[in-house]
Amino acid sequence: MPEFRQNMATKEWVVIATERAKRPEDFLKGKEARPELPAYSPTCPFCPGNEGKTPPSVLTMEEDGTWKLRVVPNKFAALQPQFSTKRERVGRFLKADGFGIAEVIIETPAHNATIATMDGHDVQRVVEAYKSRQVAISQDPRINMVTVFRNHGPKAGTSLEHPHSQIIATPIIPPHVRSPMTQATLAFDTYGSCVFCDMIGEELRQSERVIIETEHFVALCPFASRSPFETRILPKRHNSSFTTISDVEIEDLARVLKTLLRKIYVGLDNPDYNYIIRSAPTTDEDVRFYHWYILIVLKLTTPAGFEIGSGIYINTTYPEQCAAFLRDVSI
Amino acid sequence: MPEFRQNMATKEWVVIATERAKRPEDFLKGKEARPELPAYSPTCPFCPGNEGKTPPSVLTMEEDGTWKLRVVPNKFAALQPQFSTKRERVGRFLKADGFGIAEVIIETPAHNATIATMDGHDVQRVVEAYKSRQVAISQDPRINMVTVFRNHGPKAGTSLEHPHSQIIATPIIPPHVRSPMTQATLAFDTYGSCVFCDMIGEELRQSERVIIETEHFVALCPFASRSPFETRILPKRHNSSFTTISDVEIEDLARVLKTLLRKIYVGLDNPDYNYIIRSAPTTDEDVRFYHWYILIVLKLTTPAGFEIGSGIYINTTYPEQCAAFLRDVSI
Repeated sequence: MPEFRQNMATKEWVVIATERAKRPEDFLKGKEARPELPAYSPTCPFCPGNEGKTPPSVLTMEEDGTWKLRVVPNKFAALQPQFSTKRERVGRFLKADGFGIAEVIIETPAHNATIATMDGHDVQRVVEAYKSRQVAISQDPRINMVTVFRNHGPKAGTSLEHPHSQIIATPIIPPHVRSPMTQATLAFDTYGSCVFCDMIGEELRQSERVIIETEHFVALCPFASRSPFETRILPKRHNSSFTTISDVEIEDLARVLKTLLRKIYVGLDNPDYNYIIRSAPTTDEDVRFYHWYILIVLKLTTPAGFEIGSGIYINTTYPEQCAAFLRDVSI
Repeated sequence: MPEFRQNMATKEWVVIATERAKRPEDFLKGKEARPELPAYSPTCPFCPGNEGKTPPSVLTMEEDGTWKLRVVPNKFAALQPQFSTKRERVGRFLKADGFGIAEVIIETPAHNATIATMDGHDVQRVVEAYKSRQVAISQDPRINMVTVFRNHGPKAGTSLEHPHSQIIATPIIPPHVRSPMTQATLAFDTYGSCVFCDMIGEELRQSERVIIETEHFVALCPFASRSPFETRILPKRHNSSFTTISDVEIEDLARVLKTLLRKIYVGLDNPDYNYIIRSAPTTDEDVRFYHWYILIVLKLTTPAGFEIGSGIYINTTYPEQCAAFLRDVSI
């Protein structure tokens, strides 16, 4: 029987559509092979030797005298830091100048690497850069929200092959971010606890959707997954902002992130994906009701009119089966 | 300069990214030609002669003794009417049986037609069927929300070529639907008027984003369009539910829908799209603060990590240019 399931934090519903249920293996059928990439591409602006093709870096991490990671302002940014944060009316409509900070994290000199294939030390450097830049950008009093994310592959909206993540920071906090926080506040006022902490506790108790559990983190396919293999990495320690992650937690997170993405890479033949670090706005960095986490969305299916219209996602897989599949992938 | 723009009804923000701005014509470049379809396909379950391959119709519209439109239960429905509406706890999580009503509207016997190429009379029949089925399904006391939508092309999530729309009705009203209604209630309590009526008034005053205006409807690219060529058709007469559309309005809407989709078909070379009739839940069918409309989303771009994470869509076109482009397409 198909079933509705509710995300206990956001109150959004999904349909687990058992009548059209696919097995995890079904997503491998008919998948186009991704072209092999060279380790170095002379025309790539992110490859070593082409540093002049990007704006000067705002953070460089070196080893043995060569850079291993660079963070540069996004040359083709949708938002730019030289503008004001002025908001003004156009008749009854509201607009604001396009102020924002947009940066690219060039994760490694190797053109053909990706998180799933990098070594652990390199992944840890990426996570360190995420924290360093989010902390630095959050100091700007004009910035109210910092979003760190990674787009992998064309279906995930990237055309640049060289492994990179992005940061976009805005003065705007939209309802898409505020509404779940309001829901979490209501849950806190009712139960006296963080709804995400409660969700982690319940997922660990039920255990069948857990993929990886370490001292500090749990990676799982949530009860109310919106799409096949939707995965979250949640810190066990309560904190609303990623900026508070400790060195020990960074080391652990890098291992979990790499292991999880490696399982996805091997088990599902390197699918396109987006991941996002969901972290409280800079205005709410130390609240008891919200909890940061990483959301990983695989681009295996296409949302259609019903999803756009209702916000109810029809998921053709059981999260329990997806988690079991990923647990069993040996890497 | 790029700018943020706010949707005055939902309070969601978009970025109009002028630094990466595309002209409407740019979306035609490199577009793959869609294969020509036959007028009849012997293996298509929706073609005449194959009526036995679908469940019996719940509505048939005939002319000259042959069917011109059929509405049938969706054989591969994610939700089904034989289940209960019971909601129950799984530990701290909430789930519900997969009760729902899912129907397919087979819009015409012609396998290779689409709204843009049908004649006006055929399009009017489709709109009549939308109303007839939404009214009928809304009578079921277990149903709280009815969504009518159309997916056109593989990027819009359909694999079936034969022209069809769909209806999915659920007992669930999700936050994605409820939150904009709550915002609209706040606007009503503040201004004493429907925020959508106000938005229509402001768009007509500013006029530059209007594509078509008739006695009863206005079609426009909204001020805060989330993606290139996002379009809405709004009724001028205030009403929260599509079920109240009059015969004269149906005739007018069919003309506007056909003209608009024809302009999109000709001007943008038959792109993939979704459209959705956004109508109040059956629990709120006659409220002063909400307003039904049709949302048309073209599948020309790919939302990426920033959109998923923040809900702020980066739109690389000016809605004003998209509207001007569509106004100028001659059909």
